[in-house]
Amino acid sequence: MIIDIHGHYTTAPKALETWRNQQIAAINDPSSAPRPSDLKITDDEIRETIEANQLKQMKQRGSDLTVFSPRASFMAHHIGDFQVSATWAAICNELCHRVSRLFPDHFIPAAMLPQSPGVDPRTCLPELKKCVEELGAVAINLNPDPSGGHWTSPPLTDRHWYPIYEKVIEYDVPVMIHVSTSCNPCFHTTGAHYINADTTAFMQLIQGDLFKDFPTLRFVIPHGGGAAPYHWGRYRGLAQELKKPPLPEHLLHNVFFDTCVYHQPGIDLLTRVVPVENILFASEMIGAVRGIDPETGHPYDDTKRFIEASKALTATQRLQIYEGNARRVYPRLDSALKQKGK
Amino acid sequence: MIIDIHGHYTTAPKALETWRNQQIAAINDPSSAPRPSDLKITDDEIRETIEANQLKQMKQRGSDLTVFSPRASFMAHHIGDFQVSATWAAICNELCHRVSRLFPDHFIPAAMLPQSPGVDPRTCLPELKKCVEELGAVAINLNPDPSGGHWTSPPLTDRHWYPIYEKVIEYDVPVMIHVSTSCNPCFHTTGAHYINADTTAFMQLIQGDLFKDFPTLRFVIPHGGGAAPYHWGRYRGLAQELKKPPLPEHLLHNVFFDTCVYHQPGIDLLTRVVPVENILFASEMIGAVRGIDPETGHPYDDTKRFIEASKALTATQRLQIYEGNARRVYPRLDSALKQKGK
Repeated sequence: MIIDIHGHYTTAPKALETWRNQQIAAINDPSSAPRPSDLKITDDEIRETIEANQLKQMKQRGSDLTVFSPRASFMAHHIGDFQVSATWAAICNELCHRVSRLFPDHFIPAAMLPQSPGVDPRTCLPELKKCVEELGAVAINLNPDPSGGHWTSPPLTDRHWYPIYEKVIEYDVPVMIHVSTSCNPCFHTTGAHYINADTTAFMQLIQGDLFKDFPTLRFVIPHGGGAAPYHWGRYRGLAQELKKPPLPEHLLHNVFFDTCVYHQPGIDLLTRVVPVENILFASEMIGAVRGIDPETGHPYDDTKRFIEASKALTATQRLQIYEGNARRVYPRLDSALKQKGK
Repeated sequence: MIIDIHGHYTTAPKALETWRNQQIAAINDPSSAPRPSDLKITDDEIRETIEANQLKQMKQRGSDLTVFSPRASFMAHHIGDFQVSATWAAICNELCHRVSRLFPDHFIPAAMLPQSPGVDPRTCLPELKKCVEELGAVAINLNPDPSGGHWTSPPLTDRHWYPIYEKVIEYDVPVMIHVSTSCNPCFHTTGAHYINADTTAFMQLIQGDLFKDFPTLRFVIPHGGGAAPYHWGRYRGLAQELKKPPLPEHLLHNVFFDTCVYHQPGIDLLTRVVPVENILFASEMIGAVRGIDPETGHPYDDTKRFIEASKALTATQRLQIYEGNARRVYPRLDSALKQKGK
């Protein structure tokens, strides 16, 4: 079985964006805000957007199951206040849940949180609870920078975030660290802000001792870990200078990287540097980079081809990356599969 | 000849830091500010700090000449106003010039600029002029984020920066993109802010068309280009989505990467992905990562070992990385060497 742990509902029916635009337009005039019930999306509309896009490509590429969360760039936690985020997160999470009910063999949800800049993350707990207990979420996406490129929240090692960590440990769900749209003109959203956030989070974890407080907390750093694997020597050296244990002991029981790296040399570096136990298959399809690579004739984000073509991986290691690691890091995903006899 | 294009005077005599601390303490009370002439550093003191550190290691490792600029993390352009930066930059540039006069075969200066957040970069031109015309600077370091981690300046492709570009083109000196200390607690200076800035700059250049306006402008992106080479497929794909030409045509006549990547797999990726013409030897010694790698028994930042051990590079290509590319990208360095018959 091939599990893609990183997919977003980037192809949701147009009505979703229209509703969101109305919500944003009404921020300064709450009486004109649309109600959640104003958003009408039928099951058939959802089916169409999935069958013609993600599911079609999953079948073409040969992946079976996607951990599916709301479109990351549309989370836009910087817009409005907590109530705006709360309404929006509930709608988006509900849609991913519906996708998972319509295609139970192919999608399983992960939740976005109703974060808002300067607001206590504790306010996210009711949505988190609902998503895990009622909607079947097997992971959450946590935005380390709800300001959208101004980085006004404390580092991930700060007690600010502890209420979230306490809850995910209770539920035994992993946390993907994933920012949203950049509203800082310096940072292109998918070309700079995403990758910088991954790098930033990894270095924050090196600086801190978070996993002493939370030995079972698990973070997935997407996009191949940002710059971290490429600069693995730098990070090993900085950990050493900071008198931290070596990275395998300091972080690698708790930190995992996905394979959203869109060329063979990048995947080869990732698998050469990071222990195979810490690598989880993902493509973020349909996401930031949708074109065909003229050098290969295949889509940039068809990352399975790079795993297949890796000369360093054994068949057993490929299975770990495709399935075994995901089942270990996402226990609720594993349980859901076992309930189906998989 | 082996030219290291990226070294900073990180070992300057203690008196420099003391003077700077006095300058900072006096920001709100200019009458108590130290005068530049209060800073007394003798030639012997400079000799000691260089001979026992950078020069010693250059001899041990086998590099000949370092392009030497003020300590990057101490530029701290966010501190004080333009006048504070101007005084500080003049002092630091003068010291690097003195190093180059005391060790003319081993050091050649690059200049920092007296940038200050929100201040027109045009104000940097007198210091730039002095450094190139009088102090022998062969390059400049440009900080794309003088706010120190808040990213309040426009992208590098904005006309805001054009006065600098016009001047460096006139002088035919390259620009290293190099941030300074982070005063944003989210970003560790050398582990996140430096690498993020490299990645951010590269993506800004993809988004823009700067080299249409300045076909001869040359940027060096340090620290191996941040995350760019590891995510080369992502960047090729994003350029394609943005309807830009392929990266070799769009950027690689003008953008170069150094080899400050502190492990063999990283250097192997860099040399596999980036054309050899665009790679310049550097170590940033003595810099962010000063320890001995227990996996190799050698210093993390002894990057020459990785170039030597690369199985992909021919002897000719190593010469390009060590010397040929630096002479081409830094014409004033080449002229200075030729004047000495080198």
